[in-house]
Amino acid sequence: MAIQKPSIPKGTRDFGQKEMARRNYIFDTIRSVFRTYGYQQIETPAMENLSTLLGKYGEEGDKLLFRILNSGDAFADVDFDKPLTSQVCEKGLRYDLTVPFARYVVQHQNDISFPFKRFQIQPVWRADRPQKGRYREFYQCDVDVIGSRSQVNELELVQMVDAVFGKLGVRVGIHINNRKVLTGFAEIAGAPDKVVDITVAIDKLDKIGLEKVEEEMADKGIEAAGIAVIRQILSLEGSFAEKLAAMKGLFQGGSASGIVSETGLKGLEELEELFGLIAAAGVSAPVEMDLSLARGLNYYTGAIFEVKALDWEIGSICGGGRYDNLTGIFGLPDLSGVGISFGADRIYDVLTGLDLFPASLEQSTTLLFAVMGADELRYVLPIAKSLRDAGVSVEVYPEATKLKKQFDYADRKAIPFISINGSSEMEAGTVNIKNLASGTQQAFPATDLAAILAFLSF
Amino acid sequence: MAIQKPSIPKGTRDFGQKEMARRNYIFDTIRSVFRTYGYQQIETPAMENLSTLLGKYGEEGDKLLFRILNSGDAFADVDFDKPLTSQVCEKGLRYDLTVPFARYVVQHQNDISFPFKRFQIQPVWRADRPQKGRYREFYQCDVDVIGSRSQVNELELVQMVDAVFGKLGVRVGIHINNRKVLTGFAEIAGAPDKVVDITVAIDKLDKIGLEKVEEEMADKGIEAAGIAVIRQILSLEGSFAEKLAAMKGLFQGGSASGIVSETGLKGLEELEELFGLIAAAGVSAPVEMDLSLARGLNYYTGAIFEVKALDWEIGSICGGGRYDNLTGIFGLPDLSGVGISFGADRIYDVLTGLDLFPASLEQSTTLLFAVMGADELRYVLPIAKSLRDAGVSVEVYPEATKLKKQFDYADRKAIPFISINGSSEMEAGTVNIKNLASGTQQAFPATDLAAILAFLSF
Repeated sequence: MAIQKPSIPKGTRDFGQKEMARRNYIFDTIRSVFRTYGYQQIETPAMENLSTLLGKYGEEGDKLLFRILNSGDAFADVDFDKPLTSQVCEKGLRYDLTVPFARYVVQHQNDISFPFKRFQIQPVWRADRPQKGRYREFYQCDVDVIGSRSQVNELELVQMVDAVFGKLGVRVGIHINNRKVLTGFAEIAGAPDKVVDITVAIDKLDKIGLEKVEEEMADKGIEAAGIAVIRQILSLEGSFAEKLAAMKGLFQGGSASGIVSETGLKGLEELEELFGLIAAAGVSAPVEMDLSLARGLNYYTGAIFEVKALDWEIGSICGGGRYDNLTGIFGLPDLSGVGISFGADRIYDVLTGLDLFPASLEQSTTLLFAVMGADELRYVLPIAKSLRDAGVSVEVYPEATKLKKQFDYADRKAIPFISINGSSEMEAGTVNIKNLASGTQQAFPATDLAAILAFLSF
Repeated sequence: MAIQKPSIPKGTRDFGQKEMARRNYIFDTIRSVFRTYGYQQIETPAMENLSTLLGKYGEEGDKLLFRILNSGDAFADVDFDKPLTSQVCEKGLRYDLTVPFARYVVQHQNDISFPFKRFQIQPVWRADRPQKGRYREFYQCDVDVIGSRSQVNELELVQMVDAVFGKLGVRVGIHINNRKVLTGFAEIAGAPDKVVDITVAIDKLDKIGLEKVEEEMADKGIEAAGIAVIRQILSLEGSFAEKLAAMKGLFQGGSASGIVSETGLKGLEELEELFGLIAAAGVSAPVEMDLSLARGLNYYTGAIFEVKALDWEIGSICGGGRYDNLTGIFGLPDLSGVGISFGADRIYDVLTGLDLFPASLEQSTTLLFAVMGADELRYVLPIAKSLRDAGVSVEVYPEATKLKKQFDYADRKAIPFISINGSSEMEAGTVNIKNLASGTQQAFPATDLAAILAFLSF
């Protein structure tokens, strides 16, 4: 058979030991925080029926689904006069974790204790054009609670974000808005049917500035008077309490349009309650009301979150919000939920950029037993076993080869301790261990595990 | 849009919180053992190029690959007079972890320190007909070392198997054979070209018995004299040393055929060395030479392993062997490796069957704060936070609803402690915690974290 030059599909990645150690560190940290809040992990299959996935991500999203050819002879009973794709593909790869979660909740509703607090850490696949920082396979890490309208849930998400980034050592700012407030904007701007257009436009405020946002709204048919009202809102400054009071005034009919927005007022009430809970519980990271925050996602109905690293420019590293009808499409209406998603790749980049990964991740093996011959090998095997049983990561070099080669191996794997034992150690029943960084070397009775562990700082 | 009844593709599974906790327990145990032996984790993409996968699993395997439709308009430039599948699919889902591992080693050979000790825990997909215990998506858990011919590697795999099942509390028997010994069988049976047929037949000895094995060999064209030699081998009894001595005699020309097998003798030498290393290192599980063990896999060239649970009938729960040319197909010849694969689903079934999962897995949350009103909520929030910061899994019921409902929630989630606090606790600055199993109830100063943690046995 001809020899193939191996490669992987574009937009996908291999994860070597270093990347895995770092990714596991991020996920383990996130998981440990989720657990202290009583969230439980689930997993769904990589493949879902296309009927579950299609129509959930818009027309563009449908095109980005990876479809799986039916097994057996997929083309056997095909009508070539009709579109082929839907005839030969019934399954697709998971595009996100949200739709499979909604499907899961509906399918297992009788086995679930609501409020249902779950998290899920799995890869998703999108046939996007690959580019720097955008992959066709990447992990998502979602945490949601469904079946409760209480804002204690929003609070918990904020607390978990705070705890996760606190543990990771990343200073973040947490931005919060409320979809009902955005609806209020559209209402008092006299364009209640244009809430999506307005939302999409003001979502870009950070990137393109107020002027361009106003142009975009004009393009979408918002009248000048309406745009003036939006400008009034986006220009509000001051403390949370001051902004809140000003917004309340506008929603009560105090804007240029004089229109009252009950929905907007409800949104403000929710924001006020949530900020009150945050103050009561105590959150270390700065939490800010951000009236321009929209996240473009149409299904949010209440709180909207976004998290940014304060010391590294990379955009949002975490975001989410409340939704009221995620499960409706699968036949279970009126189940309100709220969730956030941690951007694993971006968090990885922030930790790399700020050099925040613990140095210990680089080192996986603590001690290497160099091997000089068959007898020496047999001598160290039970000692290595005792140390492993005590939890130390130990390697025994598998060949009695040149010491130089064994030292090189220790060096490349960043192994900090090496043990070389010959006939004198075997006669004395000792183990000789060298700290490669300091050069310190010491001999221990082979049975004195405690002393060896202490020398290894284990 | 019409409401869809949600379902998942046949042969796939959702993993709920209980299954996830159990599966994580198995994988965490395996991982912790792998780490103490200096093995490092990698991950490869779910999708591989079909050129990487095709032809590696035989004709039957090629049919069982899940193929992914090319993105964009897959049928745009198709020649309908030629086979369609290969024109519209360039990628497929991973069928096992072995071929992607070989591809990984070749692709990254310049970045790898050999001997390369890696493990990989990821799902694989096969378009097999689903049936009880056979799924279309399932996890594999492989550990391999590549780039060393030393049998210290075989020893380490045996030690890791021993340690993993020791930690899981499963009594196992480890069976070992050597492919060169099987080649020796074929040679002294006068059918050196029939080693695969002979191997496949004797692999079934346990299931179908000696008589049927002999019939199968006759069907494959092995002559009666050859079958008589195989019978002589399979009927050997006695201790390891006795069997080894008898086999040595047969391979040295002492069988009915009088043929000498150098390869067979080399295999015996390897077995003897490995059992010597096992004795030197100390392994708790019984390790047995099993001359009928073949595992059907053609690419093994040295040691062959199989692990069976002693107290639960389920077949092999772990197996593997040495291979000499896994990476050759990708252009890197002469790299010898040895590895084993843990059967996650079967291990799960054994632990379930023998009731060996720790009871603590059932319980994810330690303490529930019941909530009776907005003030009580704000009172307990900082206390809950302190406990979470101390690592305790705490939930705050998100609604001030009927206590009955909150108790039911604690019951369904198997939460062992509940804390109910009203105006008297708030005035006294105390927290009232009840142990739901014993009925013991106690009030603590809200600031006395140590006393609360002790009551929670944390």
